[in-house]
Amino acid sequence: YRMNIAFLGLGNMGVAMATNLLKAGHQLTVYNRTASKADPLKELGATVAATPAEAVKDAGIIFSMVTDDAALQELCTGPDGLLQALPQGAVHASCSTVAPDTNRRLAEAHTRQGAHLVATPVFGKPDAAAAAKLWLIMAGDDEAKQKLRPVLEVLGQGTAQDFGTDPGAANLVKLCGNFMLGAAIEAMAEAFTLAQKSGLDRQQVYEFFTGTLFNLPIYQSYGKLVAERHYQPIGAAPAIIRKDLRLVLDEARTYTVPMPFANIIFDNLSTTVAKKEDVDWAGFAERVAENAGL
Amino acid sequence: YRMNIAFLGLGNMGVAMATNLLKAGHQLTVYNRTASKADPLKELGATVAATPAEAVKDAGIIFSMVTDDAALQELCTGPDGLLQALPQGAVHASCSTVAPDTNRRLAEAHTRQGAHLVATPVFGKPDAAAAAKLWLIMAGDDEAKQKLRPVLEVLGQGTAQDFGTDPGAANLVKLCGNFMLGAAIEAMAEAFTLAQKSGLDRQQVYEFFTGTLFNLPIYQSYGKLVAERHYQPIGAAPAIIRKDLRLVLDEARTYTVPMPFANIIFDNLSTTVAKKEDVDWAGFAERVAENAGL
Repeated sequence: YRMNIAFLGLGNMGVAMATNLLKAGHQLTVYNRTASKADPLKELGATVAATPAEAVKDAGIIFSMVTDDAALQELCTGPDGLLQALPQGAVHASCSTVAPDTNRRLAEAHTRQGAHLVATPVFGKPDAAAAAKLWLIMAGDDEAKQKLRPVLEVLGQGTAQDFGTDPGAANLVKLCGNFMLGAAIEAMAEAFTLAQKSGLDRQQVYEFFTGTLFNLPIYQSYGKLVAERHYQPIGAAPAIIRKDLRLVLDEARTYTVPMPFANIIFDNLSTTVAKKEDVDWAGFAERVAENAGL
Repeated sequence: YRMNIAFLGLGNMGVAMATNLLKAGHQLTVYNRTASKADPLKELGATVAATPAEAVKDAGIIFSMVTDDAALQELCTGPDGLLQALPQGAVHASCSTVAPDTNRRLAEAHTRQGAHLVATPVFGKPDAAAAAKLWLIMAGDDEAKQKLRPVLEVLGQGTAQDFGTDPGAANLVKLCGNFMLGAAIEAMAEAFTLAQKSGLDRQQVYEFFTGTLFNLPIYQSYGKLVAERHYQPIGAAPAIIRKDLRLVLDEARTYTVPMPFANIIFDNLSTTVAKKEDVDWAGFAERVAENAGL
């Protein structure tokens, strides 16, 4: 089957996901604030819309994948925002990493228009998105999730895990995931730095652990950057993930949960952003080396 | 081929490793401070010695696997210690998790007797030891390592990674590994606790992550204890791994490396030990739940 799908937000992740929807045979209308980002999708057959409202007006399913809460808010409620033109019964898969409350509030606004927002965060880098190897999770209205499920299948591996009817729940899980990735990076940074300062070869320690106990793609890929102390290429900028860690700490304050690891990662990300380093977010690992005088 | 091997220290790890050496056809003499622990090995054909010195007097290769630095020191230099009876050319595979300097000092004492100590820490729980699935690393004299290599092959998976001629280097890598495991446990504890307090199902969050991004045995096995908040069975007691984290922090002070994650893990282990909780060491994760009022 073939659906009318709108895709809003064509960063590295969005373009890769939209391309897979096109390849699966769906009719795609795309929108991006910087219009030129839509060019490669246009060549593949996508229609380019000038505004979010125009993009969604005939869509049964809408995807959005933008940088932060403000961008998602603007996309939905701004001038020419999608809420103005939302078709009855449309399902909006909100993929951005945002505060749980942002998706909760926007979900209510969708419901008032006879449509649905399902929080659909994704795990994986742009290369995983391109290879349709994302892990997806979702939370929101049950019928809307059912409608979304077959479309999500062309984007990821396995089926999307269902975290219930509260859209915020899926975002909280996503935030937990980014926090745990940060913890793995900080742990490697501390271990590799101690090893190096005691006279060991940082690279050999990295290779040993990621070939045995920590034989896992996330340790291998982030660990390589940490081992080499060369944080390129940039998968996600430090400011982006610092925003995620800030959201983690916001939730931790809301629910009164002390999270000492999250504070440390956040502070190291803050320094990396403050220093305007042009690195992948794993570059916060450099703070550990720096603090040890390396 | 068949060698005369002595195995000293018959805790859960030692018994499993010694059993695999016996199964491989080696002639085994065993010693343990509490003699009854040797009974199952005696049934399998091992000779039981009354003292460390007696155990090693005809051995070409000696294994030791004891709880801490003091126990290893006693085994080597105590009354009837193995250094008194060390055969010329013998190689002592020192498997215990001890301070790098302890193995360095003992290695010198071995050299003075015309023998060698090779630091040979192992990664894996008793069930991995029984299944000959340990990961082994080694550091020490090059010829001694060569002599040890074929014997180590029946204990682990892959070949033992060689971390050079400084015996302390292998212990430092082992300490880094236990620290990184602790970091994974603390990270899960913080994430699962936040998820639970925000209304999510702790078990579902555990299952999602350990089936996707963190699809790795160490996350699955320790994460199960953290998700269930039931820290049984006991693989290693909190006091044992607290000792390891203390050694990590000792090294961090020696080499002037700030390790904020290691401090947090150490403090949580300290509380767990102070409360005399009869749990696996991952039970320090309970501090995170407790501090959040769960």
